[in-house]
This record gives sequence, C-alpha cells and structure tokens, in this order.
Amino acid sequence: MFQRITLAAIAFILFPGLATQTAAAADNARNTPSASTLLAQSKPDEWRTPDPENLLYLQLPSGRVIIELAPGFTPLHAANIRTLARAHYFDGLSILRVQDDFVSQWGTPEDPKDGYAPTPRNRGSAKTSLPPEFTRPLDAVLPWTGLPDGDLYAPEVGFSEGFPVGRDRTSGQEWLLHCYGMVGVARDNDPQSGDGGSLYAVIGQARRLDRNLAVAGRVLVGMPLLSGLPRGDGDKGFYTAADQRTPIRSVQVAADIPVKQRPAIRVLRTDSATFAALLDAARNRHDAFYSTAPGKVGVCDIPAPVREGPANRH
Amino acid sequence: MFQRITLAAIAFILFPGLATQTAAAADNARNTPSASTLLAQSKPDEWRTPDPENLLYLQLPSGRVIIELAPGFTPLHAANIRTLARAHYFDGLSILRVQDDFVSQWGTPEDPKDGYAPTPRNRGSAKTSLPPEFTRPLDAVLPWTGLPDGDLYAPEVGFSEGFPVGRDRTSGQEWLLHCYGMVGVARDNDPQSGDGGSLYAVIGQARRLDRNLAVAGRVLVGMPLLSGLPRGDGDKGFYTAADQRTPIRSVQVAADIPVKQRPAIRVLRTDSATFAALLDAARNRHDAFYSTAPGKVGVCDIPAPVREGPANRH
Repeated sequence: MFQRITLAAIAFILFPGLATQTAAAADNARNTPSASTLLAQSKPDEWRTPDPENLLYLQLPSGRVIIELAPGFTPLHAANIRTLARAHYFDGLSILRVQDDFVSQWGTPEDPKDGYAPTPRNRGSAKTSLPPEFTRPLDAVLPWTGLPDGDLYAPEVGFSEGFPVGRDRTSGQEWLLHCYGMVGVARDNDPQSGDGGSLYAVIGQARRLDRNLAVAGRVLVGMPLLSGLPRGDGDKGFYTAADQRTPIRSVQVAADIPVKQRPAIRVLRTDSATFAALLDAARNRHDAFYSTAPGKVGVCDIPAPVREGPANRH
Repeated sequence: MFQRITLAAIAFILFPGLATQTAAAADNARNTPSASTLLAQSKPDEWRTPDPENLLYLQLPSGRVIIELAPGFTPLHAANIRTLARAHYFDGLSILRVQDDFVSQWGTPEDPKDGYAPTPRNRGSAKTSLPPEFTRPLDAVLPWTGLPDGDLYAPEVGFSEGFPVGRDRTSGQEWLLHCYGMVGVARDNDPQSGDGGSLYAVIGQARRLDRNLAVAGRVLVGMPLLSGLPRGDGDKGFYTAADQRTPIRSVQVAADIPVKQRPAIRVLRTDSATFAALLDAARNRHDAFYSTAPGKVGVCDIPAPVREGPANRH
C-alpha cells in the first residue's frame, strides 16, 4: 500500500494537470483490494484439484453438496465413509436435525424416537466402531500455513490444504477445527461409537466440539442447502415429524462417477500468495464502506475459496 | 467441583456398603452441570424484564421475532426505529437478503434492482440520517461484566445486560459486537446514511463489521425464523424474485400492545451468579460426552439465556 501511494504521489509531481484523477488514484490506493479482485488476479497453479477419492457428492432434492474428506487428519473415518457411500448406505436416509447456531446432521437415526428405527442397511465392509481420531500427532508432512493472529481456543492455528487446523506443541497434537462448513462424525457417549454413518455440518458456534469429535472434512460447495433449512422443533433441533426431514437421494464418491460428469472443483491453496493477500485484505480492510479495519483475522472467519466449474473442463 | 469430590469420598468412608452408588456420585461430581440444570436452579431476581419500549415484535408468516433495542449504546437509532415502527413503516416490507454465514436483512429495499423501488411510505417523524453511533464513550453507568478469556478483535470483551460488548481503554470507546443474533443498521457508504429502516440480524461470521455499523440490539426470541431461510440467489444474498422474499406483516413496539397480550420476556442478568456458573461450565465442560474442555469461552459463544412465558403472567 505504501508503494502505491508513493506511485500516486509521483504521478502528481510529474503530471500536475491530472490532479483530480490522481486524487482518485490515491483514494483507490488507500482501499484494500476486494476478495473478488484478488481472486481474479490469482494464478492457475495457486488452485488445487482435490483427489476424487476424497470428494463426496451429497444429493438432496434442492441440489448437490460437495464435501472434501480429510484423510490426512482422519484417515480411518474417511475410509469408512467411502465404504458406506459405496454400499449406498446413505441413500434414502435424511437430514435428521438442524440445531440453530450449531449443526445440521444427517444419516443414521440416533434413536427410534427420532422418527424411525434404523432398518438393517447394507454397510458393505464398513466398520461399526473406529478409533476416535479426534487429534493426530503433529508432523512435518501435512502442509501447514500458520495464522499469526491468534485464537481463543487453540495455542496455534493455521490451514492445511484449505482445512482450518489447531495445534498444540506441548501435547504434540493437531486437529481440524469446528469452523463453519466443517463436517464432523456424530457419535454416542463412547468415543469409539462414531462410524461415519451419521455426519454433521457446522452451521454456527461449535468450537466447543474441538478435540471431542472426529472432523472428517469440509463442505466445499452447497453449504446453503444445509444451513438454510428450517430448524428442528425437537430437543437439540431434531425434527419430530418425518415430513420435516430432507431426504438424501444419494451419497457418492466422485471417483466412482465418469470424469465427464464431475464438476471441476478447485480449492485455493492456503499456502499461496493469493490466500496470503486475502488474509491481509481482511485484516486491513479499508474502502468506501469500511473505515475501521479489524487488524486481525480469525481462522474460522475466512474459508479457503472454492471454484466450481462445469463438467468436461478438466 | 473439588468440594463435591471430597463429599463423595467422605460418603465412601462413612458408608462403604454404598460403594457402587458412591462411585456413580463421584462420576457425577466430575461432570460439569448442564446449562439446563444451572438455569433450573437460578433465582427469579437473576432475571431482568426488558423495558417494553425497547422490545420490537417482528411478525412474519412463520411466527414472531422479538428484538431488544440497546438504547444504552445506540440511543438515536433506537428512537428512530421506534418512530418508524409506530408509523407502520415496516409493515408490508420484507426480508430482502439472506447471505449465507453472514446476515439476514429486512426493511427498506436498497435499490430498485432488488426487486421494487421503495414506494413513498409513512415515516412519521423519523429522521433520514443519523450520527453513526458505531461506538460510544466508555462510562461507568452501563452495567459491565468482563469476560477474562480474551477475544481476537477487541482489547476487552464482556456483557452489558445480555449484550456482548467490546471495549478499548486506549480510545476510551465501547461498542456492541456482531455476534450471532445481534441486530445492526444497514447503510450505504456514507456512515450517516443508516436510519434504522433497513436492519440485519447476524447469522454467521460478521465480526468484521464491528465499529463499522451501528448495532441496534439483539434478537431475544425467534432467531431460527431469520437464520433458517433459504439463502438469496443474487449478489450478497439478495433475493432476485419477489416471491422469494418473506413478507413482514408488522413491526410493533411492545409498549403499544396491551400488557395482557405481551409474552412475559425475561433475560438472564449477565452479572448474575447463574450466568457466571454458565460461563464456568462452558469453560470446563466435562461429562459423559465431552472429555476435552475448551478452557475458555468466547463472548459470541454463549448468548445470555432468554425465557418466554405466556402472556398474562407478568
């Protein structure tokens, strides 16, 4: 920004007749660039194509939700969820619960009182119990872009391939954070009772769940289809009547769909110059509307951007 | 908690035959009390009855939203909103915009492109321009309960009569925070262009708006009616077709309604022992489900509880 103002000042010295334009240029120079401007200037190699083995298509009557699994953090859960999807386990189940300012949850009904007993379903070779995977040992293999602005709940926060992550060097652990749009694995009291057949997306304040549940991934496309649903009228936002539940038409692994039928999905690399510029613009936001910049940016306040292109354009 | 474990241990010593029960008691003793248990134990004088001059009833086809204005922070905006409501300015307008993970906005259409031009409407004596009131000078008159756990964006945070507040002793200012459920005043680029005829409720990550807009109050009842709406398909979540917009039947000031028709609203005092216990339970949460406590609680993560009783029970 200093450099741009300097250039505007130089222009004023060299071309005093352009005073008005130069003042406008100086005004623009004081404005932080918008996110859309920064994204338009990004380079193709700053975008990552997720592995289709890690992409789930959750088909609802209202449209398609695309989720990226995070096997770097929760490999056993990712494998089990893939197995369940390939056994068509989710097809015909529904969204059971939308608790305001917390989560939307779908899949295995928790209890017959939730409307219907879980009929025996094909689970393929999916396990019924998994090690918790609430945290994982810190290592140097997973990509890491630290965020220097701090966090209330984790000693250190940052991003790994677009996923928001917390770290604790004392315990030597790292974990995915319950930010908006993250997908977790519901369970009973037993920490090993989650199998991936019941999942939730974070639609509100849910950081209290961090390190208490396995986080399986992130919604890349279609969050409004999960967040914009009527809230459930029962305890914890469970729907009490069958016709309130949104049916799940199918959950498929992208790798199982012909390439030409898959939308082209790109996720901005969180270790890219453009993502760094987005973070900076959020911290220092100043333009015609915003006069007071926050000075910092929270790890849950800036999701890694996603581009969805038409199919056949890989 | 220490005390309760000690009592359980004493019980074990005195009545060894009760070993099983005592072990269960010790288990319970290690559990933090649930929010519902703490609220059930609260005392009547820990609850505040909001001034009916500060309560707005926003009537939608789906039900009633109740908003508490915060004249301690934004008095000129509170007065103008009351005047507009009393002129029936809002009646027949609609919810114009629902931007996912950000805000739901209603009232004056921003632009004819938003579907229809704002027809001339009765505004009573409401002003068309107001001083910003984005922050106010710190003073010792407004109630204040500091939260010691810190915040990413404000030097100090706490609560004032249930409203989440940021403070900066250096600038000598304090301001209402854009937490979930807070209600702000939409405006154009001109900081004085907000008049309270267009309002928004925070449904997502909106702390970046802090100190850039006037915050008029908080939704006490009915947030799901604003947060559970389909997201708008246009730029910034504006609806592009008239039939997507939720109509506003009326906005009324509670003081203008006969007492017997008003629901009894109580807000837990944020300087009460029960609210302090709720904060502590959130920090230290440990029970059959939660094994890892967050250790802290964010100012936006724990809204002051509200009780809505039937009318006629004041």
